[in-house]
Amino acid sequence: MVSSNYRDLNVPGRILLGPGPSMVPPRVLAALSQPPVGYLDPYFSEIMDETQALLRYLFRTENEVTFPISGTGTAGMEAAIANFVEPGDRVLAAISGYFGERLAEIAGRYGAQVVRLERPWGEVFTPRDFENALTAGDFKLVTLVHGETSTGAVQTRVAEIAEVVHRHGALLVLDTVASLGGIPVEVDAWNVDICYSGSQKCISAPPGMAPFTVGPRAMEAFEMRKTPVANWYLDIAGLRRYWNAEQKSYHHTAPINLVYALREALRLIVEEGIENRWARHRFVSELLWQGLIDLGLPPRVPEESRMISLTAAALPGGLDEAVVRRRLLEDYNVEVAGGFGPLAGKIWRIGVMGYSCRRENVTLLLAALKELLP
Amino acid sequence: MVSSNYRDLNVPGRILLGPGPSMVPPRVLAALSQPPVGYLDPYFSEIMDETQALLRYLFRTENEVTFPISGTGTAGMEAAIANFVEPGDRVLAAISGYFGERLAEIAGRYGAQVVRLERPWGEVFTPRDFENALTAGDFKLVTLVHGETSTGAVQTRVAEIAEVVHRHGALLVLDTVASLGGIPVEVDAWNVDICYSGSQKCISAPPGMAPFTVGPRAMEAFEMRKTPVANWYLDIAGLRRYWNAEQKSYHHTAPINLVYALREALRLIVEEGIENRWARHRFVSELLWQGLIDLGLPPRVPEESRMISLTAAALPGGLDEAVVRRRLLEDYNVEVAGGFGPLAGKIWRIGVMGYSCRRENVTLLLAALKELLP
Repeated sequence: MVSSNYRDLNVPGRILLGPGPSMVPPRVLAALSQPPVGYLDPYFSEIMDETQALLRYLFRTENEVTFPISGTGTAGMEAAIANFVEPGDRVLAAISGYFGERLAEIAGRYGAQVVRLERPWGEVFTPRDFENALTAGDFKLVTLVHGETSTGAVQTRVAEIAEVVHRHGALLVLDTVASLGGIPVEVDAWNVDICYSGSQKCISAPPGMAPFTVGPRAMEAFEMRKTPVANWYLDIAGLRRYWNAEQKSYHHTAPINLVYALREALRLIVEEGIENRWARHRFVSELLWQGLIDLGLPPRVPEESRMISLTAAALPGGLDEAVVRRRLLEDYNVEVAGGFGPLAGKIWRIGVMGYSCRRENVTLLLAALKELLP
Repeated sequence: MVSSNYRDLNVPGRILLGPGPSMVPPRVLAALSQPPVGYLDPYFSEIMDETQALLRYLFRTENEVTFPISGTGTAGMEAAIANFVEPGDRVLAAISGYFGERLAEIAGRYGAQVVRLERPWGEVFTPRDFENALTAGDFKLVTLVHGETSTGAVQTRVAEIAEVVHRHGALLVLDTVASLGGIPVEVDAWNVDICYSGSQKCISAPPGMAPFTVGPRAMEAFEMRKTPVANWYLDIAGLRRYWNAEQKSYHHTAPINLVYALREALRLIVEEGIENRWARHRFVSELLWQGLIDLGLPPRVPEESRMISLTAAALPGGLDEAVVRRRLLEDYNVEVAGGFGPLAGKIWRIGVMGYSCRRENVTLLLAALKELLP
């Protein structure tokens, strides 16, 4: 049934300029490949504590409950819903792209009454949008995507939105999967209650972990739950006991090597300095934008709400975009992604995230496109 | 808040003889550290298909729905429950250790009416136990742990139990987290409906993936669900579309590097031959057992239901076991685990799993214990 001659792994060296995973720095790959230790080994316990402190630096928070979840960004999204929604709770879901939609879908699965606050894909919301929607009353949770990977738009004015949400007695969940580590995210200054990300985009660790943080207001709501969290694997009560600084108690076997790698990626962020990292992302993205304009593929989202880490390039009519993307990958080893949903065939999604965010990568992409475009 | 001088990673080279993670072979660590490609890259698509074929070899199954879940063994356990239980369904949970208990707990969280079939920790069940329990009628699912990591007992007669379960119209979930890859597991020959494992025990890949397989009877039940699966991340409808051989559609970002590593660990299993691997585990464990008897720490479980990959060694009264274990770790770099629950302080759990299962490791452990024991 199985032949024993599966080929040796021979991974093509891709230049990853899609929506993630991004490229992983050599130091992080080296950390990843260190031998595992036990999940309660005193050495690993130190690594866990350091990883949590480094994540607080990255999230700009002092939240005690800050750790990586043992799954990809979607597991972080699911944890943000599963722990704070009980059947019958009302959830206001802001939707202007695929991931806003996914949050609404997940909330519904956990029994929430979901009210949809919608804008066309690629637009963003104003605080007044929330003011109007929340007066309908009695919401437990509001979900919002900071950087929409499906559209390239970034939600500005998060602090003002959080103020509106709190004035109406609700909690704010913020998805920063595509933004954390590349553009400013300020969990404490913005008063975000629940925030999660993915390891594989602007952080440039391998995919498989979801940085996660919960503020005191949300923890208070968590303690008041009347029903157990349906999702055992993602229940923060158990995760918290495992990631506790004083005494760690078994919950599940952490993906030890992914934690090594995440810690190393976070060390690199501290060494660079988070503000310098944001500036690098802006500098390289501006080069990209100018180049795309010159090629006739201008960014689709207006500059005031354009995400810096991921750009949606508007495609000219009549371009066989899938063919060009395939040639980019096959002939140049460069990955960019197409659009989907209402934007299928209309945009490319070009990420310059983390270690992928280097001038040489943008120069290569633009030069290759110049050769490929009709 | 964060100093920039977190130390370089300097992982101690542990000899891992606890209940997992086990040691990871050099070839697997090398595969792990290859650079990631995109989650829909044609190269990765091949790797996914090969990984699935290799998992079918390991599970001894032809089930089409066979893939690794993007989480640790517990995520596999949760997927086994979440996809096949709807609120109000009756579940019979066989419990004679911690992981049997956890299955019951998770089933309850998904709204099942759980009936407990209990035996003291360390014992196993007979087909008649199930016959008697199932006549109470109308069960949807029966949960059973093959090798109980908390006790060192292995459930024999699984095929006979499956026959009883099916005769009563229920599905059998089998937990093989501690057994798959080390001792015989025969998904098709035993007629197991839903089976999962963890990457980090007898498979000796890094922790973070859960091999998972579902047979046709269970898929039929899945298609008949009346309610959506509460757990979006683990919903096999979405996972199946991503792992589909013909056309892969995005569900979440797979932990690319962990898939590389799992595939490499599975290639090593094919190269060794699964029957040879089982024989190696038996040979090394028998050396361990004899050595433990000589030291006055005999296996606690009688040989007919003793797990080969993980041994519970019975401790003499008055031994300060935690001190000995700490010295083993600190002075010899050898990890073994204590007992917990009703077995706390009464046993050590000694695993010889996968790449940890080598004669030199057992010789070292026994020699070190001889030096340490009073």
